[in-house]
Amino acid sequence: MKYIISLGAISLFSSALYANTPKNIIYMIGDGMGPAYTSAYRYYSDDPATKDVETTIFDHLLTGMARTFPDDHTYVTDSAAGATALSTGHKSYNGAIAVDTHKKPLLTMLEIAKQKDMTTALVATSQINHATPASFAAHNSHRKNYNEIADDYIDNKINAQFPVDLLLGGGQKYFIREDRDLIAEFKSAGYVYKNQLATLDSLNQIPAIGLFADIALPYVVDSGENHLTLMTKKTLELLDNHNQEGFFAMIEGSQIDWCGHANDIRCAMGEMNDFAQAVTLAKQFVDSHPDTLLVITADHSTGGLTLGSLGEYKWETEIIKDVSVSASKLATELATAPDINATWKQFVKWPLSKEQLDALKKAKQIDGDALFTAVRKVINDKSYTGWTTGGHTAIDVPVFAYGMGSEQLRGHLNNTDIAQTLIDYIKQ
Amino acid sequence: MKYIISLGAISLFSSALYANTPKNIIYMIGDGMGPAYTSAYRYYSDDPATKDVETTIFDHLLTGMARTFPDDHTYVTDSAAGATALSTGHKSYNGAIAVDTHKKPLLTMLEIAKQKDMTTALVATSQINHATPASFAAHNSHRKNYNEIADDYIDNKINAQFPVDLLLGGGQKYFIREDRDLIAEFKSAGYVYKNQLATLDSLNQIPAIGLFADIALPYVVDSGENHLTLMTKKTLELLDNHNQEGFFAMIEGSQIDWCGHANDIRCAMGEMNDFAQAVTLAKQFVDSHPDTLLVITADHSTGGLTLGSLGEYKWETEIIKDVSVSASKLATELATAPDINATWKQFVKWPLSKEQLDALKKAKQIDGDALFTAVRKVINDKSYTGWTTGGHTAIDVPVFAYGMGSEQLRGHLNNTDIAQTLIDYIKQ
Repeated sequence: MKYIISLGAISLFSSALYANTPKNIIYMIGDGMGPAYTSAYRYYSDDPATKDVETTIFDHLLTGMARTFPDDHTYVTDSAAGATALSTGHKSYNGAIAVDTHKKPLLTMLEIAKQKDMTTALVATSQINHATPASFAAHNSHRKNYNEIADDYIDNKINAQFPVDLLLGGGQKYFIREDRDLIAEFKSAGYVYKNQLATLDSLNQIPAIGLFADIALPYVVDSGENHLTLMTKKTLELLDNHNQEGFFAMIEGSQIDWCGHANDIRCAMGEMNDFAQAVTLAKQFVDSHPDTLLVITADHSTGGLTLGSLGEYKWETEIIKDVSVSASKLATELATAPDINATWKQFVKWPLSKEQLDALKKAKQIDGDALFTAVRKVINDKSYTGWTTGGHTAIDVPVFAYGMGSEQLRGHLNNTDIAQTLIDYIKQ
Repeated sequence: MKYIISLGAISLFSSALYANTPKNIIYMIGDGMGPAYTSAYRYYSDDPATKDVETTIFDHLLTGMARTFPDDHTYVTDSAAGATALSTGHKSYNGAIAVDTHKKPLLTMLEIAKQKDMTTALVATSQINHATPASFAAHNSHRKNYNEIADDYIDNKINAQFPVDLLLGGGQKYFIREDRDLIAEFKSAGYVYKNQLATLDSLNQIPAIGLFADIALPYVVDSGENHLTLMTKKTLELLDNHNQEGFFAMIEGSQIDWCGHANDIRCAMGEMNDFAQAVTLAKQFVDSHPDTLLVITADHSTGGLTLGSLGEYKWETEIIKDVSVSASKLATELATAPDINATWKQFVKWPLSKEQLDALKKAKQIDGDALFTAVRKVINDKSYTGWTTGGHTAIDVPVFAYGMGSEQLRGHLNNTDIAQTLIDYIKQ
């Protein structure tokens, strides 16, 4: 074997020359998006008419993996401890919103960006005061204190008031309350408020807050609308050249996790597709703004999703594609249906076997929960989709990075290392 | 934010300068070692007395992930198609041993290395003619043709005879048969033969063949011996400076997969620990031989292992550590035990609850399979270990690379890309 310089070395050489500190940071979190989800999305998106399996945006951006354990020896994190690690660089307990194990507030990268006069944005498809976005701009001993967390988006106890210049997501009920009208306070501070996604196009200024649902936005598979993609497009338009000091934006695909908790593969693939389109927009922004860093990861994996079950060596994506609604909506429709078969055919292209029909009839006689469980079992078993829990698992998650400074996010990382790298960039 | 060259860029710069074509290649395959296994091994190895979670050898070597689908749209590969992709750079059908979809032989990287006058080695803890090692030096339409595959290690139809200079593993029954004595043929070709692992130390020449079991070596957890580590140590000793043209060695942790098929987490962690020790020896070899490339990956993930089940946010490693034998051995012992509780206590440090004891008693009355299933359920449920299949899944697998030329194996790869990169190095 001869000794020659390989082409790869030369391309690394040149990429290294261009690496430096980014002006803008786009931080995208797929909540619950463990490696089974990005693998699943590739095969779900595959065109069976072509010989090869088409790659996804995630395949092009992968740089490593991250370990996600919280600050104890349980090894399985929740979204609050996960997001706190990803926003502050510190491990904490499950339930912690940017506070340490003594419940003391931890400065977040969004707050540091604000101190550096950067423009800040939070985007989510859940209520905007849910665990992941909350851990970037609020501080609370427990994720469930939704009203206190919403208040923090104005009062922010350890940093400037109004730490976030652009907020897009759900959660109207937490911002317009009997005891306090946060929207009125945002407006008097100069924020424009939008309360319908249909009017998002007309938003043309920062600061702004858009809350498009009472709590969370609907599942993509049920609404037929890529909510995150729409909000990401508007966010990048508004942030483009808005501030010479640059921007920090955290954009979350919140409900990948929720579909995972429901063990609903069709629902999860709908959220993954929305997230993938939003990531594609972010990559395009980096391509036209080379001084920007795009980082994408997950806080944990949800549901113990696996692509294979019951001993079979196949994962039946066509079965999943032929389901047109979430399992929860399908179960709700079947609960009041005079004829299970007829209603099933309205939403699913493949017919029920006699055994499947009998299982649904039997479950329907018990209650709605039993029917929901039976519907998921029919779809999961027929597609050979496996799940092991209604909660989270401890598997490492994928890390993706692209653009200026991305070479710092290669290989195996602690989730806190990702945060520390971004904080170092923001401080420079 | 200022613009400065980051340290990461400088370190990449220097690593790029040193990158070139390796003289020696150590290719290690953890059969079935999906990302849940390397994550699990970290937490299983964690010292609960320290605040942090200790990292593993895998964390230090991770460079990316690989997609593993076979040459159809089932997405879930078996070990034969997986190893064929990893040895030849071509996708094929499940069951294929280095043949294409038309069952035509495909030249393997080991055969190319032999053509380049490099020394070649195959090491496995399964029978040495099992799917993964077979796909590097034999060609067959189906993995189950064990005798024909063993014959190929001498006859090799598309390359030189005796393609492998050093073979270590199990499989005596396939090599010493009524119809043909392959060991006699190996000996007359100048190979030394060892038939007991205890005598491996006395092996001091290449060519050599060591078969240490009738079929596979026993599970590490049952034998208490790190078989792969012992064979890896001897292999690297024998290959060290043996040939100025360098060497190619494929070393497989075969039974990570078998413990996964059995849904036996204690068994899997025993095999993972042996594999991790073998990887550590290989990394040390690269440190003292900088002209060597070490690549480690998996052919697929087995069993749908997840670290979390039943909705609980924890994975109980102490429960697993307190089991001292494989579930199959434990079930066999319990099958003939006059007192289930007494025998359980011989092998497991934690006691059975009344419900667990009743479940084992009930299963024992049915048959051995029912008892084996019941034993696994007790251990998996108590440790919150999840499994979804007795087969494989389609999740992407981790890729690890270290040493000369490793920069070519970063990011997301097709499993065939890994093979093509190594083949390109071998051809240079």
